[in-house]
Amino acid sequence: MPATAEDDRQFMERALKLAEQGRGHVEPNPMVGCVIVKEGQIVGEGYHQQFGGPHAERNALANCEAEAAVGSTVYVTLEPCCHHGKTPPCTEALLEAKPARVVVAMQDPFPKVQGGGLHILKEAGIDVAVGICQEEAERLNAPYLKRQQLGKPWLIAKWAMTLDGKLATASGSSKWISSEEARAEVHRIRGLCDGVMVGSGTAKLDNPLLTTRPPGPRTAARIVIDGQASLNETSRLIETIDEAPVIVAASPNARPERLERLAHAGCDFIVCQGNNHAARVDFLLTELARRGMTNLLVEGGSQLLGLLWDTRQIDEVYAFVAPKIAGGSEAISPIGGHGISGMEDASQLNRVEVNHFGDTICMHGFVN
Amino acid sequence: MPATAEDDRQFMERALKLAEQGRGHVEPNPMVGCVIVKEGQIVGEGYHQQFGGPHAERNALANCEAEAAVGSTVYVTLEPCCHHGKTPPCTEALLEAKPARVVVAMQDPFPKVQGGGLHILKEAGIDVAVGICQEEAERLNAPYLKRQQLGKPWLIAKWAMTLDGKLATASGSSKWISSEEARAEVHRIRGLCDGVMVGSGTAKLDNPLLTTRPPGPRTAARIVIDGQASLNETSRLIETIDEAPVIVAASPNARPERLERLAHAGCDFIVCQGNNHAARVDFLLTELARRGMTNLLVEGGSQLLGLLWDTRQIDEVYAFVAPKIAGGSEAISPIGGHGISGMEDASQLNRVEVNHFGDTICMHGFVN
Ligand SMILES: NC(=O)c1ccc[n+]([C@@H]2O[C@H](COP(=O)([O-])OP(=O)(O)OC[C@H]3O[C@@H](n4cnc5c(N)ncnc54)[C@H](OP(=O)(O)O)[C@@H]3O)[C@@H](O)[C@H]2O)c1
Ligand SMILES: NC(=O)c1ccc[n+]([C@@H]2O[C@H](COP(=O)([O-])OP(=O)(O)OC[C@H]3O[C@@H](n4cnc5c(N)ncnc54)[C@H](OP(=O)(O)O)[C@@H]3O)[C@@H](O)[C@H]2O)c1
Repeated sequence: MPATAEDDRQFMERALKLAEQGRGHVEPNPMVGCVIVKEGQIVGEGYHQQFGGPHAERNALANCEAEAAVGSTVYVTLEPCCHHGKTPPCTEALLEAKPARVVVAMQDPFPKVQGGGLHILKEAGIDVAVGICQEEAERLNAPYLKRQQLGKPWLIAKWAMTLDGKLATASGSSKWISSEEARAEVHRIRGLCDGVMVGSGTAKLDNPLLTTRPPGPRTAARIVIDGQASLNETSRLIETIDEAPVIVAASPNARPERLERLAHAGCDFIVCQGNNHAARVDFLLTELARRGMTNLLVEGGSQLLGLLWDTRQIDEVYAFVAPKIAGGSEAISPIGGHGISGMEDASQLNRVEVNHFGDTICMHGFVN
Repeated sequence: MPATAEDDRQFMERALKLAEQGRGHVEPNPMVGCVIVKEGQIVGEGYHQQFGGPHAERNALANCEAEAAVGSTVYVTLEPCCHHGKTPPCTEALLEAKPARVVVAMQDPFPKVQGGGLHILKEAGIDVAVGICQEEAERLNAPYLKRQQLGKPWLIAKWAMTLDGKLATASGSSKWISSEEARAEVHRIRGLCDGVMVGSGTAKLDNPLLTTRPPGPRTAARIVIDGQASLNETSRLIETIDEAPVIVAASPNARPERLERLAHAGCDFIVCQGNNHAARVDFLLTELARRGMTNLLVEGGSQLLGLLWDTRQIDEVYAFVAPKIAGGSEAISPIGGHGISGMEDASQLNRVEVNHFGDTICMHGFVN
């Protein structure tokens, strides 16, 4: 009995669920899951668990009896690779295993793959189907795809505000707006990211640590957008330089002595070319993607979020709202910048989820 | 078997639930519920249903066989009245019914009662207990109690904001931030209030109707804080003057011609004494309470909410948060005014509830 479209979706959803478990462990690789099905039963499954480790297909085949794989259907959330990277091509492993059919959620836009894997399988006489759960697969790997296609990291904006929309009071006081549980959630997200980014205002006013406590699967570099390289050597960021890298994104007119002192203190720095904030942040994001960064968490403040919002760099939002009132027409709003002029042009977030963290709620959604 | 403390609480909670059904119908009277219990069974119940109509005790007795009432326990959420108002005193009805025990959640601070009702019952040899579910009873009638004790109406602040804390864009555009379902909820709340209040900025920029659609149990007067009496005669508020009163709260230096024109258009006005906004709004609130208003819904804008927040007039908050982003450092924040200087002084709302209205969430809570 051949698999129905419904069967295909169901097995692919299982493979996507497996893939998801690699989050934070596999980047800058994509998350990939694989399920091997024979006569309607799952006979093997696996996922890409760790950057540099075996791919999903190999893990699934390792969990599957060799004879069960013969004549099976292999569901994989991303086109199998066909090039020698850190591991030999998955197409080879599949050809050896002799499945009758390979179902793929989406092509891999990676230049060395891009349909090449599918082609090899078809050539070998395997029945190949592409596009099952494609939307879900694209969403799962949206950060990977953005980096591949646009050469920029995926930007996640996070802020905590009072119920009357204040990020901080007029004097810059913001400790603490959200609950302890909400702050723990922020640390969980940090632990999945390659970098945590703040503006120089926040670095100065809040003197934050920006480390992940407790640590997650990744150690996020702490990035400060700081045109003048003004970060203080006695700041907590630099005091904790051994716990996670600090990268200062300076402008071309930062004083060389400042850069030297920061370098001496153990900071990395990037001199961002461009004669305005927008150009320099663009330069920076490209450079961070080039260094392999897939996910960046932007933790404010208002000006930095405004700049990134106005230039449409933000992909995902976590907004924490606490049942507290601050008041004040001069207090600081979460997203500064130019904004829109008519409310009808406000951006509606997509796939919004609301969660409670103690007394604080979190609205999470996507810009596209 | 005498009633346990647990029984007492349980029957009083039932009486409170009944009382609540009078909301929007009984003001400026308090909401009151009554349950009559004999041998552990409810033998009659009732509540104050309508201003001018019979009180809770009389309604409950009317639903109870005369002999069942004899020797019963009567639970009532507020001290029975002992004066001739629109209806004869409830103490008389109770004495006639001959209960053995009367349990009261709280004393009535109304000057003509204030313990007098309890005294009459005790004198007649009835066992009287006071203070069962007192906190809940005080919360239920907090607006009534505020008006009795402070001579001010209960102020409910409502706003709708984007997820980045904007009430409107810098140019004053705010249509529409929240979902249709959220707006329907606002109309539900309006229909329970004696007045809906906005600032002159909102009246000008939004040209709102502020009527209740569909109508609720009360018709809220539409009140504009408008020092110069600048409300336009062609505004939608005045165009719909037949649907609900419009009250312009002017300052002593509003031009008399303006007031005359507004009066001619069918507006009511109050010339508020005081030489600053805070003093004038205080004057206004006292005058509105004197006119019998118990609940006022303040619908913005930012300056009016700021003024009321800074002067600690707000009692209750409905904040609608939509999953939309506007951006902009010059956009308008829900609560303007002076605000606080350190975030540790932000006011934590109490008894917070979160509800979903379409894509918009509503955080509802109390200032005290
Ligand atoms: N509640 C929260 O979740 C939260 C989170 C973070 C921060 N905060 C609060 O936010 C406040 C700091 O926010 P902030 O807005 O003052 O500072 P900020 O955004 O942290 O720092 C200002 C940033 O904007 C850039 N910038 C300066 N001028 C600009 C322009 N004309 N156009 C575009 N970008 C420009 C600066 O870059 P250069 O240095 O290169 O000029 C800098 O990176 C603090 O009070 C902090 O407590 C709250
Ligand atoms: N999203 C929402 O839920 C919502 C709701 C309402 C309004 N809005 C938006 O809010 C904007 C209007 O807000 P707004 O703040 O500009 O106007 P507003 O608060 O509606 O009106 C200004 C009020 O503040 C008073 N006022 C003026 N100067 C003051 C001072 N120095 N101190 C204290 N009070 C003062 C004025 O009284 P006098 O006239 O007596 O001077 C007036 O009542 C509009 O863009 C509207 O679309 C949004």
